[in-house]
Amino acid sequence: MNYKQLFEQIKLKKSFLCVGLDSDIAKIPAHLKNADDPVFEFNKAIVDATAEFTVAYKPNIAFYECRGAAGWKTLEKTVNYIKTNYPDIFLIADAKRGDIGNTSKMYAGAFLENMSFDSITVAPYMGEDSVTPFLAYEGKWVILLALTSNKGAFDFQFFEQNNQKLFEKVLEKSQEWGTKENMMYVVGATKAEMLEDIRKITPDHFLLVPGVGAQGGSLQEVAKYGMNSSCGLLVNSSRGIIFADTSDNFAAVAGEKAKELQQEMEQLLKEKSVL
Amino acid sequence: MNYKQLFEQIKLKKSFLCVGLDSDIAKIPAHLKNADDPVFEFNKAIVDATAEFTVAYKPNIAFYECRGAAGWKTLEKTVNYIKTNYPDIFLIADAKRGDIGNTSKMYAGAFLENMSFDSITVAPYMGEDSVTPFLAYEGKWVILLALTSNKGAFDFQFFEQNNQKLFEKVLEKSQEWGTKENMMYVVGATKAEMLEDIRKITPDHFLLVPGVGAQGGSLQEVAKYGMNSSCGLLVNSSRGIIFADTSDNFAAVAGEKAKELQQEMEQLLKEKSVL
Repeated sequence: MNYKQLFEQIKLKKSFLCVGLDSDIAKIPAHLKNADDPVFEFNKAIVDATAEFTVAYKPNIAFYECRGAAGWKTLEKTVNYIKTNYPDIFLIADAKRGDIGNTSKMYAGAFLENMSFDSITVAPYMGEDSVTPFLAYEGKWVILLALTSNKGAFDFQFFEQNNQKLFEKVLEKSQEWGTKENMMYVVGATKAEMLEDIRKITPDHFLLVPGVGAQGGSLQEVAKYGMNSSCGLLVNSSRGIIFADTSDNFAAVAGEKAKELQQEMEQLLKEKSVL
Repeated sequence: MNYKQLFEQIKLKKSFLCVGLDSDIAKIPAHLKNADDPVFEFNKAIVDATAEFTVAYKPNIAFYECRGAAGWKTLEKTVNYIKTNYPDIFLIADAKRGDIGNTSKMYAGAFLENMSFDSITVAPYMGEDSVTPFLAYEGKWVILLALTSNKGAFDFQFFEQNNQKLFEKVLEKSQEWGTKENMMYVVGATKAEMLEDIRKITPDHFLLVPGVGAQGGSLQEVAKYGMNSSCGLLVNSSRGIIFADTSDNFAAVAGEKAKELQQEMEQLLKEKSVL
């Protein structure tokens, strides 16, 4: 999926919502636990209930990997289910991978070739040759960690050389490797006001913003400081949608929560004259 | 395995060799390809031929993950095979993971609990709460990326604030989170002379040194600048051992290559009066 197609989906759905499929098997509703593949059944129901309001899904790979080979099967089935039934939805492997070149190439194959993910989150610490193998696929994307939403973000990401912070250096340097057509950045919503400065470095790139909802960020603030004329935002909510309810009715409640966010997003897109 | 036990193994085997099981299915000998699980057969033969000379094995997870659920099964079987037959060998998951706290906890469970790895490589970019969940297991280790052996290391790891480079900051800051008993560092061998300065920041910690052999580092230089009184080094060789030969005789040749390195290491341990 390219930049233009992604923007088309945003306009069509009046939404820039990404739903995080952090489908912790310990937290899914009890009545699903006797199914052959409880997490897949959970994901399927969540996706069917939220797809109308959603432009992207983002399974966090840790929640699958922690169940070994069985978890990988669930992940593969989830990806196939979404791509078969909702082919226009953007799929993000939240994997935060990154290694020396020939190894990153293997990770890229795993997610962008063997599975039909449109994109993968990548950690920048090892630099150019750890990132570029993920950029070798036409129509696929790297989503590079820049400024994350956790407390530990302050340990290294604000390290500063000549008035430039490390995350700003990541934003600047990585633009030598990819373009707004194949690279996005992770920018945490808990620091929404910083989006104003980030937009000076990267006015056009899409930003994946985690941390709205359970992690505490505000959607209005994110839109105020981060939205550009092509929207330029994918805002993620995970627990606030998928674990909003744990009864038999969980999927319907997830759908309602996604719809609430979509409606708020529609309003913001109109206020910013994107729609 | 604790610090003392690891040092005992080093003295017993007169070796600080780590063999990297970067077992790319495209590169394993042709005659194995009809086996049920070719990569497992390959790993088993490599391990049996090299275990005598080796204190650690390090599967790089990318080479398993690229085959999806099937690759994970191979990884699990390999880990079980090593832990059953060679319980005193230190097992490193070269995974370079790292995410927000509740997600890192899932990765930690995957490698340190569900599989019997002794340690996992972790990327530092997201800071403290991305690293500490891996430190919650008694006798298990984090191996934190500090200075990597690839060209891209120069993009961000040398970013400098008040005469302190980012990788030095990582070495310093992370000593607030773990000790020499549960934390090691990845330091690339292509910059062996830098080990002298690194030892000023971290005199006692074990360092995992990739990049000897195919990636071009010198074992003598690594020992000269990096060895301490408890050895303090695990030096990795992957392709130089496991793909030294691709005939039917591959395992025996791998054994010879491992033995050559062990003998060189024994000499260096004696010169430094560690043995």
